[in-house]
Amino acid sequence: MLDRIRIVLIGTSHPGNIGGVARAMHNMGLADLALVAPRCVPVTADSVSRASGADHLVNAARVVETLEEAVADCTLVVGASARSRTLPWPMITPRELGVRLPKELAGEAARLALVFGREDSGLTNAELQRCHAHVHIPTNPDFSSLNLAAAVQVLAYECRLAWLAGQETPDEEPGQPLATHEELEHYFAHLERTLIAIGFHDPAMPRQLMARLRRFTLRARPERMELNILRGILSETDKRVPGQGDDKDHRHGE
Amino acid sequence: MLDRIRIVLIGTSHPGNIGGVARAMHNMGLADLALVAPRCVPVTADSVSRASGADHLVNAARVVETLEEAVADCTLVVGASARSRTLPWPMITPRELGVRLPKELAGEAARLALVFGREDSGLTNAELQRCHAHVHIPTNPDFSSLNLAAAVQVLAYECRLAWLAGQETPDEEPGQPLATHEELEHYFAHLERTLIAIGFHDPAMPRQLMARLRRFTLRARPERMELNILRGILSETDKRVPGQGDDKDHRHGE
Repeated sequence: MLDRIRIVLIGTSHPGNIGGVARAMHNMGLADLALVAPRCVPVTADSVSRASGADHLVNAARVVETLEEAVADCTLVVGASARSRTLPWPMITPRELGVRLPKELAGEAARLALVFGREDSGLTNAELQRCHAHVHIPTNPDFSSLNLAAAVQVLAYECRLAWLAGQETPDEEPGQPLATHEELEHYFAHLERTLIAIGFHDPAMPRQLMARLRRFTLRARPERMELNILRGILSETDKRVPGQGDDKDHRHGE
Repeated sequence: MLDRIRIVLIGTSHPGNIGGVARAMHNMGLADLALVAPRCVPVTADSVSRASGADHLVNAARVVETLEEAVADCTLVVGASARSRTLPWPMITPRELGVRLPKELAGEAARLALVFGREDSGLTNAELQRCHAHVHIPTNPDFSSLNLAAAVQVLAYECRLAWLAGQETPDEEPGQPLATHEELEHYFAHLERTLIAIGFHDPAMPRQLMARLRRFTLRARPERMELNILRGILSETDKRVPGQGDDKDHRHGE
């Protein structure tokens, strides 16, 4: 189960924090690290020192440009968030995350990404809206900003506890395959095009429409089969709009 | 409840770790820090930087020479231990610690000390035997040594969760006042003198006798009243030993 969990760090500034994250991960039995557009060189004397023997995780980390690349194959994307946002998103505690993991990660292709933001500014709203849920580590409201490695430590600890508890109980029956992040993003892109085409959505006046649709859809955790149905509905809708059904460019890359 | 929890660091070598511990404590709402014989200057640029706004905890930390001074007034002393020892001690998980806290810390005079050892060698056996219980953070067996601040982070997080859970349930009824660490140590000293006096215990051939008696006694969590009874038994025993009952020097400082 632990090998199906990826830690994703976005825009990290301090190599020491990457090393500290690697140590926390290895301590808890996690190994899959992805760095999105780091704002520092990951492998330095400082990161190796803070990794304290777990620097192989830093060396093996996948470095990518976008969150989408880092989580494309993930069936559950959870963002670490300290703040409540203008548009409330499904919020879970670290413990609730742990409780859900055995079932979430039962299938062979299941993948969880735990996404952590920048040291100074966390995750952007756009990044948070790409997550199925947000996890909030309860902190002192007067001093709520955790060190990056400390935040990873707490969530990785909950993952390990959940895994250890699962060792004592029979395996969960895997359910239907869930849609991956990439499939969901293709769906959202298609949905937005269709909503514009039918005149329901005006990108110049978004009014959080897409955010609300994302939240609704992600909360439901669509299976791949269900997403195929939704895509089918959109394709059928497209055919009703003059000039839309034949526009092959809109399907580029899908 | 959180103000009745003290973090005790023994023989810390790196100021940065003290700063990291202060940050983790303040994040979780803890404020009471004691440093036993630190092997570094606590307040440095590095510790202030790692504290990241929680350096007032480092400045306010009490620096003492011995573990005894740091935990004298504590009613529950729990040592963080990575290793299993030759003499197994009551071992709890961080979660079990949290579950116990609301009841443990219900009384006005209740105090918990969480004791953390040196970065390189942890706690000594003598230090571990001064604890009521040991807490073990579950780790990857191939890479079990947590960073000091990370270990404090995990236990402080469990304390905070327990406190938050307690906010939702009525207060526990405080039980009888428990013996403090200092009262227990006076008892153990008295016990050892008496056992030597009656010829049961040979300090030159200890065979872990005192360690086993400590473990038994600490596991029972004696109330002050019960300890008074035990002391009374010892005093009565002393009177049966020629030359022992009148030896006032043995009561020095009690």
